[in-house]
Amino acid sequence: MSEKINFEKKVLSENDRLAAVIRENLNARGILSLNLVSSPGSGKTSLLERTLKELGEKLNIALVAGDVQTENDANRLSKAGGRIVRPVITGGACHLDARMIDRALNKIDLSGTDVLFIENVGNLVCPSSYDLGEDMKVVLISTTEGDDKPLKYPSMFRRSSLMIINKTDLTEFTDFDIDKVKANARTINGDLEIFELSCRTGKGLDAWYEWLIDAAAKKKNSRQ
Amino acid sequence: MSEKINFEKKVLSENDRLAAVIRENLNARGILSLNLVSSPGSGKTSLLERTLKELGEKLNIALVAGDVQTENDANRLSKAGGRIVRPVITGGACHLDARMIDRALNKIDLSGTDVLFIENVGNLVCPSSYDLGEDMKVVLISTTEGDDKPLKYPSMFRRSSLMIINKTDLTEFTDFDIDKVKANARTINGDLEIFELSCRTGKGLDAWYEWLIDAAAKKKNSRQ
Repeated sequence: MSEKINFEKKVLSENDRLAAVIRENLNARGILSLNLVSSPGSGKTSLLERTLKELGEKLNIALVAGDVQTENDANRLSKAGGRIVRPVITGGACHLDARMIDRALNKIDLSGTDVLFIENVGNLVCPSSYDLGEDMKVVLISTTEGDDKPLKYPSMFRRSSLMIINKTDLTEFTDFDIDKVKANARTINGDLEIFELSCRTGKGLDAWYEWLIDAAAKKKNSRQ
Repeated sequence: MSEKINFEKKVLSENDRLAAVIRENLNARGILSLNLVSSPGSGKTSLLERTLKELGEKLNIALVAGDVQTENDANRLSKAGGRIVRPVITGGACHLDARMIDRALNKIDLSGTDVLFIENVGNLVCPSSYDLGEDMKVVLISTTEGDDKPLKYPSMFRRSSLMIINKTDLTEFTDFDIDKVKANARTINGDLEIFELSCRTGKGLDAWYEWLIDAAAKKKNSRQ
């Protein structure tokens, strides 16, 4: 058992070292970087598709799209107007790590970029342990998933700064209680900022866009 | 990198050795054992709740309910009439392993049991690598998740024998294409048996119950 713990510590400390290098590079350029995490199918790609379509003129967005297999998400994001979309296939690994991000960023021209989105592998457990050098983790949860998820997968909600409740258009067809999921999430992380929206109907997206534009401007100013 | 691969190989071979012991024990008792795997929120617990309520008189069912944190699922299953429900909290780990199952089974009296359900951690990646000594993996996918999931998470669909498409009552409110998910799944695994059902409305559950009763009888007979 101690062999396992020592090995995991070593892997994580190497990851943290590289994440710090990535963070320094992004900070020097004033790029806001968001690591999107969630279960498979919560709507990370859908959120990015709409954000690209509706904010693509206002913000210069770069994306790294991680998947275990296929470039489906990266292709969807390119079709949605993404100018810089870099796919990362983990080849079986259950999370993105800083090494994968470092390699991906080395193949992208980041000059002029306002926001970097990293779409992690759909997995509510493992990606929580890996710092990718991002400013913050944004966790998505959809109304079809069950409102006790923050309690059952606490690490992800503890390490995220923002929670986006997606698929609010389906709430009426489920037993999902939005007040309950918020209360559960805030039990785990009292500082969590929360958005409710539907990528399908568009309801609630305005607040997310406002937040994003504001956060990107703050990040840009922090450099000067 | 080779250090990592060697370490993973060692962990998995220890797991396989213990899984073989568990399988031998369950086979000797003629117990059908199913390892339920899926994304968080696909409806593993809901399926087990309904199965317990509606087959609890016909089949003697034991359950091991795994979660990263909380005993929420185990509590739900006990309320649904589960006589033998053993919670396993992984404490951060993203999957159940054979050691956890071995410990759990040592605390259960399995005499007279027809079916053992193991409800894995909600995670479409990591649990695919861990043999728990089960007869088969049953993968759930819900219609709110996206029909390309079998392509994006192929290992889980390759190693499962059954795929249950859940939440068919919500199909009309989503872009999910049932024919497409079946085709995608069969690209990965041509032998996959597929059920379509809704744990909410009950539609399609009869076929699952019939299959379960039949499979349990076959397993019992295989012992004699």
